[in-house]
Amino acid sequence: VSGVWFNGELVEGPLALAPTDRGLMLGDGLFETIAVRSGTAMWLDEHLARLSAASAELGLDVDADVFGLGLGRIMQCSEAPHEILRITVTRGVTPRGLAAPTQAPSLLFSLTPFEPAKFPPSVRLATSTVRRNEFAPSSRLKTLSYIDAIVAAREVVGKADDALMLNTSGRVACSTVGNVFVLKGKTLMTPAVGEGILPGIARAKILQHAAAWGFDAREEQIEPCALLDADAVFLTNSLRLVTAVTQVDDKTAGGVSVIDLKKKLESIS
Amino acid sequence: VSGVWFNGELVEGPLALAPTDRGLMLGDGLFETIAVRSGTAMWLDEHLARLSAASAELGLDVDADVFGLGLGRIMQCSEAPHEILRITVTRGVTPRGLAAPTQAPSLLFSLTPFEPAKFPPSVRLATSTVRRNEFAPSSRLKTLSYIDAIVAAREVVGKADDALMLNTSGRVACSTVGNVFVLKGKTLMTPAVGEGILPGIARAKILQHAAAWGFDAREEQIEPCALLDADAVFLTNSLRLVTAVTQVDDKTAGGVSVIDLKKKLESIS
Repeated sequence: VSGVWFNGELVEGPLALAPTDRGLMLGDGLFETIAVRSGTAMWLDEHLARLSAASAELGLDVDADVFGLGLGRIMQCSEAPHEILRITVTRGVTPRGLAAPTQAPSLLFSLTPFEPAKFPPSVRLATSTVRRNEFAPSSRLKTLSYIDAIVAAREVVGKADDALMLNTSGRVACSTVGNVFVLKGKTLMTPAVGEGILPGIARAKILQHAAAWGFDAREEQIEPCALLDADAVFLTNSLRLVTAVTQVDDKTAGGVSVIDLKKKLESIS
Repeated sequence: VSGVWFNGELVEGPLALAPTDRGLMLGDGLFETIAVRSGTAMWLDEHLARLSAASAELGLDVDADVFGLGLGRIMQCSEAPHEILRITVTRGVTPRGLAAPTQAPSLLFSLTPFEPAKFPPSVRLATSTVRRNEFAPSSRLKTLSYIDAIVAAREVVGKADDALMLNTSGRVACSTVGNVFVLKGKTLMTPAVGEGILPGIARAKILQHAAAWGFDAREEQIEPCALLDADAVFLTNSLRLVTAVTQVDDKTAGGVSVIDLKKKLESIS
């Protein structure tokens, strides 16, 4: 770990967390994971905008000055060429009751080195029985309540590298760690946010730049069978950027290389 | 707080929690809340059986000796006539990756005084737009990933006392803090576990004793309109036992008193 900042100060070793902090008790909070390259947090404004909008939706009012102070302090800890900045906001301690008013949110920054080369360039997916709930705001917010993705990921261990999650209507939503894109000719499709997905930052960058890169990009409802009929299937997230999908369950998927797209994505700030 | 026990010892003040503990990072864990009356944990075997089954399902392997030691130690802290024992198990710290193998789960016991008289004898419900996901195991496990219930509870503040949650198929599931029962004549109905509900301990006790108490109890699919047509609607949980529902959205519900049922439930161990 390069550094940890919690509720006002840099800390070494364990956090001093209230035993009733709702982040720990109830998964009641939000997070962001941000790629840091040589001390620069990538797409920081976009991550902070998403966190800010989600915080407003959940009523998690973080003091902007404290936030800025913590962010500045943690970034001074940067020491490795590739790091992950994680920002965690919890509802902190409240009176009893699920709807009790927020008093003092907890704020945690951590910076951890990682090796991007360790991420595989391609993955095999297996369809999980766990569905994304497009009828809950949590499906489009990056909340601490991550158990469904964990159960899905555990379910496919030994038969694939990641789980494909459908929504409760049986359409393609996402993988446990990324958004799904499907390429057919020059048409690039990805499920809309209403399908039960997190609006990923890498996803947004691709949608934003697709036309300039020669693609016709659309948010669409995607049936699982469309993955087998595509020229390429790939996952996106802020750390891995673009990961090709070579297999879905026991069938071959994709085929066209997506390395170019990864390079394009790396080049935009 | 009467007492807190964390990973091997009684603690005062904050916990020393690893900043990467998956309970805090990902809502990756389970809990139980148990009524304690004059130092006796009620329905303890049933709560521990549910926790044990859920732990096995999530691969959270807690050392039974450590668990027993902690439980014994926390119960010695009992000092008030009515307390809530909360047991929290998290996946602790693991290597990176959602499906990373569990190494050392964290175990937290806390004992907090409460006044049962403060719970209202009846509540008004408002239907939440947040749906229970009957396509995810988390809907039937008491996991730390509680954000959907929190969002639902927040949604109805100012217009009701608790939120009624439907499942993604639009049928009745539960409230944010209890199972739902519907009484019509002598027929007592409650949604089946497959409808996206936690199999509550008070719920199980009612199903178990219903026949002896003169009811014909069944697990059924329940449409929302059935709540308005019932003789009584009530919620159950381990702390409040039985709470009458008097209103659903802007319509009157129930009518028949459920106080008798509460007394019956209090009398069984």
